[in-house]
Amino acid sequence: MLIIPVKIKKLQKKYINYNIWGQSHGILKNDMNEIIIQKSDKTVLDSLRDSFNIPIDAACGGKGTCGKCKIRVLQGGVRAPDKEETNFLSDDELSRGYRLACRITSESDLHVLVDSGIDTGQILENHTGYKGNIRPLVLKRYVELDHPTLVNQDDDLTRLLKSLDAPELHVSLSIMQRLPFFLRDNDYKCTAVYNDNTLIAVESGDTCSLNYSVAFDIGTTTVVAYLLDCSTGDVMDTRSGLNAQKPFGADVIARIEYTMNQIDGLKTLQEKQLEQMSSLVKSLLEYNHINKKNLYSLTVAGNTTMLHLLAGINPSGIATAPFIPGFLKSFSCFIGELGNFYTDSLIRFMPSISAYVGADIVAGVLATSMQDSEELSLLVDLGTNGEIILGDKNGFHSCSTAAGPAFEGAHISCGMGAVKSALNTFSIKETLEYTVLGDSEPIGICGSAIVDIVASFLETGIIDETGRFAEVEEIENETVRNIFINSYNGEGEGEFILVPGDKSASGKAITFTQKDIREVQLAKAAISAGIATLLYNSRKSEDDVVHLYIAGGFGNYINKESAAKMGLILFSLLEGSI
Amino acid sequence: MLIIPVKIKKLQKKYINYNIWGQSHGILKNDMNEIIIQKSDKTVLDSLRDSFNIPIDAACGGKGTCGKCKIRVLQGGVRAPDKEETNFLSDDELSRGYRLACRITSESDLHVLVDSGIDTGQILENHTGYKGNIRPLVLKRYVELDHPTLVNQDDDLTRLLKSLDAPELHVSLSIMQRLPFFLRDNDYKCTAVYNDNTLIAVESGDTCSLNYSVAFDIGTTTVVAYLLDCSTGDVMDTRSGLNAQKPFGADVIARIEYTMNQIDGLKTLQEKQLEQMSSLVKSLLEYNHINKKNLYSLTVAGNTTMLHLLAGINPSGIATAPFIPGFLKSFSCFIGELGNFYTDSLIRFMPSISAYVGADIVAGVLATSMQDSEELSLLVDLGTNGEIILGDKNGFHSCSTAAGPAFEGAHISCGMGAVKSALNTFSIKETLEYTVLGDSEPIGICGSAIVDIVASFLETGIIDETGRFAEVEEIENETVRNIFINSYNGEGEGEFILVPGDKSASGKAITFTQKDIREVQLAKAAISAGIATLLYNSRKSEDDVVHLYIAGGFGNYINKESAAKMGLILFSLLEGSI
Repeated sequence: MLIIPVKIKKLQKKYINYNIWGQSHGILKNDMNEIIIQKSDKTVLDSLRDSFNIPIDAACGGKGTCGKCKIRVLQGGVRAPDKEETNFLSDDELSRGYRLACRITSESDLHVLVDSGIDTGQILENHTGYKGNIRPLVLKRYVELDHPTLVNQDDDLTRLLKSLDAPELHVSLSIMQRLPFFLRDNDYKCTAVYNDNTLIAVESGDTCSLNYSVAFDIGTTTVVAYLLDCSTGDVMDTRSGLNAQKPFGADVIARIEYTMNQIDGLKTLQEKQLEQMSSLVKSLLEYNHINKKNLYSLTVAGNTTMLHLLAGINPSGIATAPFIPGFLKSFSCFIGELGNFYTDSLIRFMPSISAYVGADIVAGVLATSMQDSEELSLLVDLGTNGEIILGDKNGFHSCSTAAGPAFEGAHISCGMGAVKSALNTFSIKETLEYTVLGDSEPIGICGSAIVDIVASFLETGIIDETGRFAEVEEIENETVRNIFINSYNGEGEGEFILVPGDKSASGKAITFTQKDIREVQLAKAAISAGIATLLYNSRKSEDDVVHLYIAGGFGNYINKESAAKMGLILFSLLEGSI
Repeated sequence: MLIIPVKIKKLQKKYINYNIWGQSHGILKNDMNEIIIQKSDKTVLDSLRDSFNIPIDAACGGKGTCGKCKIRVLQGGVRAPDKEETNFLSDDELSRGYRLACRITSESDLHVLVDSGIDTGQILENHTGYKGNIRPLVLKRYVELDHPTLVNQDDDLTRLLKSLDAPELHVSLSIMQRLPFFLRDNDYKCTAVYNDNTLIAVESGDTCSLNYSVAFDIGTTTVVAYLLDCSTGDVMDTRSGLNAQKPFGADVIARIEYTMNQIDGLKTLQEKQLEQMSSLVKSLLEYNHINKKNLYSLTVAGNTTMLHLLAGINPSGIATAPFIPGFLKSFSCFIGELGNFYTDSLIRFMPSISAYVGADIVAGVLATSMQDSEELSLLVDLGTNGEIILGDKNGFHSCSTAAGPAFEGAHISCGMGAVKSALNTFSIKETLEYTVLGDSEPIGICGSAIVDIVASFLETGIIDETGRFAEVEEIENETVRNIFINSYNGEGEGEFILVPGDKSASGKAITFTQKDIREVQLAKAAISAGIATLLYNSRKSEDDVVHLYIAGGFGNYINKESAAKMGLILFSLLEGSI
């Protein structure tokens, strides 16, 4: 999880912005791929995933309700478009062969072109490491035991546990079985590897400096692995990838439905996750020349559903009222109990708070040390579920709000991820000004630009406080009025042309519609309502909040001024929030 | 373990003798078996065990030092007797084809007659049940959980643990995985099965009355299994057998040597033990119509070596100075971790005290409640190792003494187990009087008769206080003198003929030699020295001992007066101990 602490200095209202750690992520579009799919009863979506390992982005999990899995049929037999397809595909697109991969099967060999939304890509990473108090899950200690004599009659196990001052440590049978020869072969000198209650291993000689851990952040969309040196607390390296479960559903509800509707669905998702984590761990260890036996522990944060899927615990209670998870408590086990893995490490699941306030938020609290502070802190995770936690050393209130995926570019007409060709900043000065990721012609808008757009519309009066597009005569500034006249298309619901067709990569204008504004309002309102509710229940006011932290990959690129202008991050800081 | 409490009433010096529980054991001789062994490099001992499942009693583990594995070769090629064989076989025996099975191989097909000492047979059982405080390892509790609501938001796991008032119980991954559907399918009503720190199972409905356990006493010679109803504490049934490891060595040292000298020796012994225990459990459950899933726990007592072998923990430290075991602590695991087993029960190893004071003694202490008593108790286990423990609620002293196997009939010239055809009582009145087990002609002497013989020799003056056979003129009583004249054969070391050849089943006289007396003295002296040492270290005298308990199968049949006369069980009670 990316966490951006925003230091609020009262009076000056000045932002100090720095990263604790984090990564941004986005999809780098592949080149066009022409694929020949053999005749099959499977949907084209499933065939592409299962036979070609091409995971198309299907946010709804293949139900025909998100319209994201557009592919282009070049040749071959396929039935006429159904209602779901005509909802999402224009006549022009249909005439060019565009179809929804989840709605069609290959009735004969099918040549298709997969030209958008492939869920492969590169996660852009940056991290500055976390420097704070560390308390590793697994400790090591070198001990030299007294040799047994006719007077010192302790048995091997007791002798070892006494040397560790831990007589009650649980010792696995396999270690007890190994101990007698091990101690004698090593002249009663060894390094014990243990955690709170279990002796995990004994090693020859002094190996205390070799103690590594991998911390995982398992997001619904991305998975990030941090390699940690437990003796120093340093983050040595990171690896990440799009969540390998993504082809089975874009959000937690779609994943849960997959476990309910598919035979062995839960097992499939668990295996996918383990396989991905295992491969990230392998890459981290090999690149850093670390022996896999020295990776004693894994720690996992993530939302409650992701942790259920990883643990193989049915998450269906999370999907329907009264929203009861199978577990929330932190627990540890050997990862081998979950399934095949590259190492034999202990895995600790961070505790979750509720069905929709997950262990990722708990990890965020710990990372910011909010729980130790006298001063009130607010942590907001800007995602599809806006998870919010407010508190100090005396305790916390938390909630989750259905913010929707607007800030991730979904449900926005020209929305897209923060990848190459995405508009990522926007402002209105003498003309419309914008920047594009990857120094190319734009094809859509990503989250940071969405915030800029709404903020600048509001600031210039192009929309009013209710979010409605203005009438021309309502706009006082002449420059803005001229821009509005040139850019606004009042037909239908109304849309503002950000980039005309002749300047976009696709040849189609990039626009922001009245409906897009409503989507953003929905997201913003959800977050605001969440914060207001927490303040109310805590008997606190906005003025009491001293520290604001924004979590979520999106937050890394957001323009804080724009966010404040539209009332997103702290609605009291500037006037004119919508 | 058989425990006989001997209530000592001061002044009256009167014995009250009753069983808490126990079993006596002995070998019922099979009929003659003619076996044809194919040409092989294996010893005949190994061939009989491996190919015919005939475990010959080889107390030394096949080293040629005990002379117990006599078989008779009827036909086939076999080399001339070596020195070990001539040590144990008379010329007469050699001429009739008797050989030691451990010393010969079948150089061609070999017809052999196995006519003695086959380690199959029936353990004679009796038990009266133990009625006392019970604290089962595994508890059951029926709970009806609150249904989840939008207000009552506990996750499934927390909901269950709260209902048990045990929020910190460790719950296995497999139960956590099962819980969500299980609770909903059972309307949030279930029976939890748990021990101190672990939730073992959840079951539909109220199954609290179905909670069974099997307690094992794993002796070097015999294994006994007690089926217990944990809801009442009743011993429902018992099963027993000769220890399946016995063919690999009669005593603990021979077993340990087997693990040191044979590849996978430890694994072999562990598997044999598990296989036997599994089969005893199967028999107990099937006969008593108990579902194997309701056998949640096994408890194991036994000497320290037996517990190492069962746990698969190398016992070699026990065999040589400074005699350090791999473990002594009590521990639990699922029996499946040890190897294949009929049930999935939890197994608890009772704690041991030292390499030679085992968990069987600890179980004896608990069974007698010595640890709760204000009065000083002495518990003596009369075995090859005489294990002795002395103490009260303030603490204990214990020791182990090398008593030797005299009381088990070994190392005694005509000694044998307490089986059919064994002389089991003996006294000198007008003539020699004796009884024989199984109402047959005698072939040897078992432990209870050995005690009678020495006691009566001592009482009548046939031997003096030093154990030396008297000269005729030293015997004052005329009847005794005449008996002595008729029965004593002063040739060689000197021997007393108990049963002349014409009255014995084998046609050979049954005698008791000067060397036999020395063996008994050795055993008795070891026990006495052990008791004296414990008293000395406890700053107690014999008079302080209020309760005396004798443990060991042999003790069930011992004549207490004889034992006291020879100074075995409490040397202060009667004059004239040797």
